[in-house]
Amino acid sequence: MVKKQKLKVIPLGGMGEIGKNLTVFEYGNDILILDCGLAFPDDEMLGVDLVIPDITYLVKNKEKIRGILLTHGHEDHIGALPYVMRDIDCPVYGTRFTLALVTNKLKEHGLASKVKLKTVAHGDTIKLGEFKIEFIRSNHSIPDVCCMAITTPVGVIFHTGDFKIDATPIDGSMIDLARIGEIGKQGVLLLMSDSTNAERPGYTMSESTVSAAFDDIFRANEHKRIIVATFASNVHRVQQIINCAHQYGRKIAISGRSMINVISVAIEHGYMKVPKGIIIDIDEIPKHAPEKLVVITTGSQGETMSALTRMAFSDHKKISLGVGDTVLISATPIPGNEKSVFRVVNELFRKGCEVIYESLADIHVSGHACKEELKLILGLVKPKYFVPAHGEYRHLMRHAALGSKMGVNKRNIHIMNIGQVLEINEDGARINGVVPSGKVLVDGLGVGDVGNIVLRDRKHLAEDGIIVVVVTISSDNKDIVSGPDVISRGFVYMRESEDLIEEIKACAKNSLDSCRAKNLGDWNTLKSHVKNDLSDFLYEKTKRKPMILPVIMEI
Amino acid sequence: MVKKQKLKVIPLGGMGEIGKNLTVFEYGNDILILDCGLAFPDDEMLGVDLVIPDITYLVKNKEKIRGILLTHGHEDHIGALPYVMRDIDCPVYGTRFTLALVTNKLKEHGLASKVKLKTVAHGDTIKLGEFKIEFIRSNHSIPDVCCMAITTPVGVIFHTGDFKIDATPIDGSMIDLARIGEIGKQGVLLLMSDSTNAERPGYTMSESTVSAAFDDIFRANEHKRIIVATFASNVHRVQQIINCAHQYGRKIAISGRSMINVISVAIEHGYMKVPKGIIIDIDEIPKHAPEKLVVITTGSQGETMSALTRMAFSDHKKISLGVGDTVLISATPIPGNEKSVFRVVNELFRKGCEVIYESLADIHVSGHACKEELKLILGLVKPKYFVPAHGEYRHLMRHAALGSKMGVNKRNIHIMNIGQVLEINEDGARINGVVPSGKVLVDGLGVGDVGNIVLRDRKHLAEDGIIVVVVTISSDNKDIVSGPDVISRGFVYMRESEDLIEEIKACAKNSLDSCRAKNLGDWNTLKSHVKNDLSDFLYEKTKRKPMILPVIMEI
Repeated sequence: MVKKQKLKVIPLGGMGEIGKNLTVFEYGNDILILDCGLAFPDDEMLGVDLVIPDITYLVKNKEKIRGILLTHGHEDHIGALPYVMRDIDCPVYGTRFTLALVTNKLKEHGLASKVKLKTVAHGDTIKLGEFKIEFIRSNHSIPDVCCMAITTPVGVIFHTGDFKIDATPIDGSMIDLARIGEIGKQGVLLLMSDSTNAERPGYTMSESTVSAAFDDIFRANEHKRIIVATFASNVHRVQQIINCAHQYGRKIAISGRSMINVISVAIEHGYMKVPKGIIIDIDEIPKHAPEKLVVITTGSQGETMSALTRMAFSDHKKISLGVGDTVLISATPIPGNEKSVFRVVNELFRKGCEVIYESLADIHVSGHACKEELKLILGLVKPKYFVPAHGEYRHLMRHAALGSKMGVNKRNIHIMNIGQVLEINEDGARINGVVPSGKVLVDGLGVGDVGNIVLRDRKHLAEDGIIVVVVTISSDNKDIVSGPDVISRGFVYMRESEDLIEEIKACAKNSLDSCRAKNLGDWNTLKSHVKNDLSDFLYEKTKRKPMILPVIMEI
Repeated sequence: MVKKQKLKVIPLGGMGEIGKNLTVFEYGNDILILDCGLAFPDDEMLGVDLVIPDITYLVKNKEKIRGILLTHGHEDHIGALPYVMRDIDCPVYGTRFTLALVTNKLKEHGLASKVKLKTVAHGDTIKLGEFKIEFIRSNHSIPDVCCMAITTPVGVIFHTGDFKIDATPIDGSMIDLARIGEIGKQGVLLLMSDSTNAERPGYTMSESTVSAAFDDIFRANEHKRIIVATFASNVHRVQQIINCAHQYGRKIAISGRSMINVISVAIEHGYMKVPKGIIIDIDEIPKHAPEKLVVITTGSQGETMSALTRMAFSDHKKISLGVGDTVLISATPIPGNEKSVFRVVNELFRKGCEVIYESLADIHVSGHACKEELKLILGLVKPKYFVPAHGEYRHLMRHAALGSKMGVNKRNIHIMNIGQVLEINEDGARINGVVPSGKVLVDGLGVGDVGNIVLRDRKHLAEDGIIVVVVTISSDNKDIVSGPDVISRGFVYMRESEDLIEEIKACAKNSLDSCRAKNLGDWNTLKSHVKNDLSDFLYEKTKRKPMILPVIMEI
């Protein structure tokens, strides 16, 4: 018998971070890609629009790639497709709703005709190279979510994708625990499971529990206009708001580009049931009594340009809020967004709105499994090897501890970093080597052209601004022909700092004169002298360190 | 009988925000200032070190100022003193511990000899102009805290300062509710009360409850080194750590400048009891077995330069962490700091440390009163007028609602903005007019020289960087003598973008040539043409908008 090759598992994103999920499975000549997401930039990635995984490894092995599998349609699982599909060519598999969102996205990038999309349904099995993939129904905070069982020559990989166990989901379709149990009984080599809520005890509440809270609020606010902000992709949340509006005889206006997009897709593909005539155009708001209206909007994270933020700061063209409006923020701030959300909440209060948010926790539930659900999956799947996925390092740690508690051998639990290669065969599993991996920054049309040097400069400019010192010298005798002139931006307000500007000029001139006295003539020497002298002078004078750009023109 | 004048209450900070607390009380020719704090910059205040209140109104009325009263020694109550005391001259009143911290601060700014500090004790009453001030014992998260009863010709103002009701504080001195009750019985005109936790139900736990949690953790980690991060100013928290270390026979090393400072002050003034010989120098750590050591450190908020962050990222000169270390973060992330804290937590886990944080809530308690405590104070003080203080707008709203529930007439509750003037006399209270107020930004040695224009430029530079285009033209015929040259920072990595740089040069040259063809010769016209043409070109090409600085030298 020929010894089997090694199965390789290589996360290129989504490990040790929440975002840009992309996992590579490789066996022999076949590569499968699971999810293809983006991440949003950290605070220190100044000016960056979004972040995608480094796919150098995939480009190098592009002839091996058999397909991309999508678990669901969230940005951190599909958002990098328009960038990745420029460099690789393979079919993309996903459920109907997921691919509907992908189609919209590809259209925006002019790639709709280039990419082959293949629709699958829950229960379907496809074969790609040496891999056989089964798509299994799951629950999360967007419709049509999948877990996947990937059969490889070495054994079965079970990947949960993002999930929760919701016994009463809005679409009535509970995660297929029975099938997961069967797969577990047949033997699973490797479990990769969602670690987002691995710190939280207990169970995540069912999406349908939100209905009761909405109902209470609609009843208590029967004389007020109601505005609800939530995640656009949370179709079932929006469905509950629609149901509530219908029950209380309210019309619905929709605000925010992504909310309009997702609702259209959801209606078009039958994922949302909307009573006829209930949705009105935003321009028709004035025709309806406020207490007969609900506005569904984006902006639940306090995003600067979102519809709710614009309403709060009187910057929305169609909707102005005030006394008589009750605003519901049906979401929890994602870590890092707290201040933005509270800025909007405070502004809404100032306008005289009622605001119901966070602290009333029952108008939002998470889409991710808590500890008891994670244990349940570990108990059903009973994997030999376990790789906690989709989480910061602290989440992976906690999930690993749960895995060990649930009977997975500690030596068989691997906390991975992106780029690491986990090799598995009948002899065992071990992390063996790395492939290129990391963050590729997207800024405007540029993909990857903003790197550490550019970011370092942006940070420097952001903190202390820039001073440009311009001088023209004669190439014959190095005499100053014109200047030094000084332009500054982001340092001090120039009009109110004329003395300082004069001192800067004098300092630059002294610096040049002293170079000349020492016969130091070449450009670089002159520049670095001016730079150092000015830098010392300014730090002494202001305790700031602006970027100094000496421009010496020789004629 | 001569009609009394109006009492004016003017918050210059700390209303609608958490930070830079400063409230002005004015009657006739007398002004009192309550607290003099700083705020930390928001994310959009790029490069700013700290923020202080605009005190234009105080400077204009400086001859009326009778004194500054300090409730306690936190930065948001004393931090602006070194700046404010440059412009006004009056005695500063506070308890011993508060003034010890103020002294340190003034020394750093070379102002120690200039400012008259007057020590008061709980129970003391002082007279300043028409005001009589009584200092009343309170509880918070720093020793020697005061509430104040300020008797004015119009009536008594009761100001809580920052407070909680702690029946079992570490120093044994509970807030003087009996005295507060007496004052309430005698009749209080105006209550100003801490709104920080006005959204939280129930009671804030006693500081001493933390001891039990520390004890559990010390027992469970008897074979490990223990590192505890907390707020330097939380002397009682540090005392509990010291007690626990003593009980378990561990020595203590201290890391972080502010931690060392505060502990020194606390020991010197008798606010901390430290068993002899228990504190060791940080250099002596290697001489002690790890399980016989506790390190107390700053960095509980994940601050970039703090000791704990440096330890986590292997950047601390004296302490390196790893397997065998248990790190306790005895604090909750202040909103906005979550990501920084988790970044440190993740890094500590990666190093192999155990980390106990947030989710184990019992190693931290708040210093601010929750709803039931706020109601208790409202019930004891029974004020005629109520101004919720020390909170974002949402907190003030909730606290106002509590006030109304507790029997204060809704019309007598005022939610104020900074700069607004609340006038009170026997006829009533109303907000009447505003005085100058706002944020003064401190950057390095500059106070107030960074304003909106500088910040807008910093933001622009941060997002897309800068392009400097330099060209020398002849003053006779406007011919280009040298250039255009292009320098960019924070836009693209120049070495990898040579083509683009060439295109920028060509674009600038075209722009100048077309100006010449149209006989547009003056500097400003040339500059704005170059700027607009380049801006259009770059946006088309890259979808980015770098700052463009054309420099045209004429010779």
